[in-house]
Amino acid sequence: MRISRLGEFGLIDTIRKMNPAKNKDVVIGVGDDTAVIRNDKSRYILLTTDTLVENVHFNLKYFTFFELGWKLLAVNLSDIAAMGGIPKYALVTLGLKKNTDVSDIKEFYDGIRSLARKTKVDVIGGDIVNSPNNLFFTMDLFGVAEKVVRRSGARPGDAVISIGKIGASSAGLTALKKHGRKAMTSNVAAHLMPSPMLKEGRLASNYATSMIDNSDGLARCLIEICRESKVGARIDASRIPLAAGASIEQALDGGEDYNLIMTAPMGKARHINNGTVIGEITRSKKIMLIDRTGKETVLKDKGYEHF
Amino acid sequence: MRISRLGEFGLIDTIRKMNPAKNKDVVIGVGDDTAVIRNDKSRYILLTTDTLVENVHFNLKYFTFFELGWKLLAVNLSDIAAMGGIPKYALVTLGLKKNTDVSDIKEFYDGIRSLARKTKVDVIGGDIVNSPNNLFFTMDLFGVAEKVVRRSGARPGDAVISIGKIGASSAGLTALKKHGRKAMTSNVAAHLMPSPMLKEGRLASNYATSMIDNSDGLARCLIEICRESKVGARIDASRIPLAAGASIEQALDGGEDYNLIMTAPMGKARHINNGTVIGEITRSKKIMLIDRTGKETVLKDKGYEHF
Repeated sequence: MRISRLGEFGLIDTIRKMNPAKNKDVVIGVGDDTAVIRNDKSRYILLTTDTLVENVHFNLKYFTFFELGWKLLAVNLSDIAAMGGIPKYALVTLGLKKNTDVSDIKEFYDGIRSLARKTKVDVIGGDIVNSPNNLFFTMDLFGVAEKVVRRSGARPGDAVISIGKIGASSAGLTALKKHGRKAMTSNVAAHLMPSPMLKEGRLASNYATSMIDNSDGLARCLIEICRESKVGARIDASRIPLAAGASIEQALDGGEDYNLIMTAPMGKARHINNGTVIGEITRSKKIMLIDRTGKETVLKDKGYEHF
Repeated sequence: MRISRLGEFGLIDTIRKMNPAKNKDVVIGVGDDTAVIRNDKSRYILLTTDTLVENVHFNLKYFTFFELGWKLLAVNLSDIAAMGGIPKYALVTLGLKKNTDVSDIKEFYDGIRSLARKTKVDVIGGDIVNSPNNLFFTMDLFGVAEKVVRRSGARPGDAVISIGKIGASSAGLTALKKHGRKAMTSNVAAHLMPSPMLKEGRLASNYATSMIDNSDGLARCLIEICRESKVGARIDASRIPLAAGASIEQALDGGEDYNLIMTAPMGKARHINNGTVIGEITRSKKIMLIDRTGKETVLKDKGYEHF
């Protein structure tokens, strides 16, 4: 069977089943964006990796190498943010063409460093390989956390909360495709250089029953949390905090916003900085979206599929 | 400047200068195959990453997916072996085409697991991305070590020791290119499914003043150790332990043997299991190769260049 038929999530399930962790220190293994290892009684190690491939994740018509470096670190930091963790060390793999310019690589590392300095991350190694047709950039990020926030902890009655606004990145990409870099707006900037929510994630981890970073759209986030937690949800479309200029479709299916979606006991929602309650976790396994007219429909996953 | 002009090692130097580690727990940062972090008083964390790219590191005419999985883990384990470390956890990034077959991916993970079981490694996460033109596979390997073995510790008078034989992989690749998989010999097997020297590395780390794994040929190993240690060496070509069927050129420049090259005080050499003394570290910065007739020539780096 072709992977395009099985899909990314079917493939992840296959891989998860093939790789049950034997070591008892493994707290979260294959299937989450971040692996979690027990380091000692009070601390956990987080390991995560994300890759950007040319003409799949980025197009050099829109992206500078500085922005690519920033974004590579940002998307990895976002995985650590969703665990309420503190990022520490990064390895960077460069898949380069023979004619890649050294100044582009310097600019790429300048982009990494610019965000790494703010977030106290050290680049401590990596690998350089030849990739004849498409550039690619892989980062492995090592972090620590005091507690473990899973995707699977949402309980019926919990509030569903979006930390930060949604849809900016997708609206920005649409503008970039239409007008190129001349159309530099806050949405375009959100697409090129997303801001991972490390502080917000750390604070939220004190209340979160589940948390996930929004890399593939709100719909995918809700589906992941509900599937892993074996619950459903009722989401009020009118309460979804849309970025200015973004549509509800861009928020639900666009992705790459790298804000945080979490659940928490309803009484704790007011403690979440920059949080907006958008709905409630339910006992039913379905995720219902209530539109402005009060009509309920089952939420569908129309987000990005790699294959 | 194109990176093909600067070369891989010039590029690594550029990246190293751009990324001085700020965190005091970083013991070894950019420039080594393995990054080392202080975890507590008695233990170090090792982080390493290696990538295999289609038509650069492997060709599907010769490699099964099982062998690719095995080799991806093996080359990463070899970096841990060169630090005398114990491997623990791996993340795997799959860069796949849309038409990749699911059974190939299962076979790939079977290959990883086959070696992972022997070496007590758990695959605990990773990433799956679309790579439209060339498959690629990246592994990040997390390990621990009780001590730090650097490349930079070789001292004049130290013995230069090869643990294991050299040249098998290169001889195997030559045979594969000529005869395909029909020519299955121990050298071909060494190329397809190398055996990382974890036990040997751990024992050797008790005596090693420097150690490196042989991924790019003996010449490159010696040049790296001597450059980092600011010393030279005199190598006796007739003492280099050639694999059966391998030439001295394949041993010097072929690479991918994943045996270990180390230095140790001359009196300790007999403690190195499977070790062969091939020469001596000198005060001069030059690396001299003595051939069978007694003629000395400066050792040149003719090993693999990515760019």
